[in-house]
Amino acid sequence: MEKYTRKVHYYETDKMGIVHHSNYIRWFEEARVYAMEKMGYSFSRLEKEKKFSPVLSYSVEIKHSTKFDDNIEIFPKIISYNGVRLSISYDVKLNEKIIATGTTTHCFTNEKGLPLRLSKSIPELDKKFKEELKFGCK
Amino acid sequence: MEKYTRKVHYYETDKMGIVHHSNYIRWFEEARVYAMEKMGYSFSRLEKEKKFSPVLSYSVEIKHSTKFDDNIEIFPKIISYNGVRLSISYDVKLNEKIIATGTTTHCFTNEKGLPLRLSKSIPELDKKFKEELKFGCK
Amino acid sequence: MEKYTRKVHYYETDKMGIVHHSNYIRWFEEARVYAMEKMGYSFSRLEKEKKFSPVLSYSVEIKHSTKFDDNIEIFPKIISYNGVRLSISYDVKLNEKIIATGTTTHCFTNEKGLPLRLSKSIPELDKKFKEELKFGCK
Amino acid sequence: MEKYTRKVHYYETDKMGIVHHSNYIRWFEEARVYAMEKMGYSFSRLEKEKKFSPVLSYSVEIKHSTKFDDNIEIFPKIISYNGVRLSISYDVKLNEKIIATGTTTHCFTNEKGLPLRLSKSIPELDKKFKEELKFGCK
Repeated sequence: MEKYTRKVHYYETDKMGIVHHSNYIRWFEEARVYAMEKMGYSFSRLEKEKKFSPVLSYSVEIKHSTKFDDNIEIFPKIISYNGVRLSISYDVKLNEKIIATGTTTHCFTNEKGLPLRLSKSIPELDKKFKEELKFGCK
Repeated sequence: MEKYTRKVHYYETDKMGIVHHSNYIRWFEEARVYAMEKMGYSFSRLEKEKKFSPVLSYSVEIKHSTKFDDNIEIFPKIISYNGVRLSISYDVKLNEKIIATGTTTHCFTNEKGLPLRLSKSIPELDKKFKEELKFGCK
Repeated sequence: MEKYTRKVHYYETDKMGIVHHSNYIRWFEEARVYAMEKMGYSFSRLEKEKKFSPVLSYSVEIKHSTKFDDNIEIFPKIISYNGVRLSISYDVKLNEKIIATGTTTHCFTNEKGLPLRLSKSIPELDKKFKEELKFGCK
Repeated sequence: MEKYTRKVHYYETDKMGIVHHSNYIRWFEEARVYAMEKMGYSFSRLEKEKKFSPVLSYSVEIKHSTKFDDNIEIFPKIISYNGVRLSISYDVKLNEKIIATGTTTHCFTNEKGLPLRLSKSIPELDKKFKEELKFGCK
């Protein structure tokens, strides 16, 4: 999956003067959306087709704090995929140094919230995830 | 409309050490939702009936900054209502002193986003707004 | 630690119609701040004494989604404390059913970001954490 | 001031399926920070010099709603500046159509929160604002 680059916004800081920890998980979402678009199957398209991808769990480890205006890079990578559940890891880098890592786990559902098996329901996306899992992060 | 009380959360502060200005408009929403429930027609119920109330415009004036853990009070008041558009003003108080004021303006729509005339579509709520406009904030 | 109760806000929902997953970690912060105040050593006081408690890591597992206006209860509990690092677990309940769980891990620092040993730097808080660890959640 | 372009994030939507109204004021901040950097005096630099620029008031008018993944453009423009107070207007465009407008008003303070006269305290920035006010948005 492609790396995603963005600046830290002022409203993401807190009174400690650093980024509030809850923002990392929002950045992961931005990176995931961006990488899926670059993979050729956008999140937008998925939802237009009335399929959804809720977050089942997530974790974040913060090694070094981030500050306003920092230019961060996020490297998402598919670490597991079984046709029903997808797990992605994220490295957050500042000046080429890893400052935070994390993971998110997702399932896929239809409009009624029922889980989908992607090989049957969205074979095109299923194939892309399998390729990503095999060949990894660029 | 009833006053709404809440504490300032840590994640609402920014690196200046005060509340980020974007949060006032979120507090107004909390106060509005609370006051409508107390009025006897909850926002929840409105949406369950497939009616929506988008924000058309808003304004905030910050006189004194607010800090983490401050115990603020918000006083919403209907300032105009013509059956189609609703305007609410808000006073934010800390220790009985007004520290910020603001307004929000709303319309009401059906599921397709088409505007509703409340006297026809939701007469019960129409009546409540008219009474509030007449008798004002408790 | 005391349980913390609050309503789900409208602005915490996303286009799936449920709470955006990033909000759980913000609720944990609210619960932690509330519980520390009830314990007798508020987060506010900690920061007024120029001591800080950054988040080192966190994790969330979402079992059932939450919706606007849901009345949720959060039960924080100290699960480990060694004088330098503190870990708290959180159960989120809706109608007495656990809908999400999570953890946060913290250290304590002075104004310059240097780590503190609480038994030396804040003995009063050190004692409270040790008692909590021993006797657990009310 | 230069225009600022960005995508709408998933976490910025609410259960109505559109962008939550509180995000516009956050986008204005992003646009302002970006435009100041392009002007040659970054917000980061301002704060490193222990000068701050709190928001005194803001207003937003939403003409058409915005959706997830929309590619929006924000055009900030200085509309008044008297050496002590600065007002900026913002046009938000989607596909070359104005979908929202707004304003923010700011003062400038030192570390203690005391207001500054820019011609005296930050003459370089004072000059830039005066030029912008004269020659307007690119």
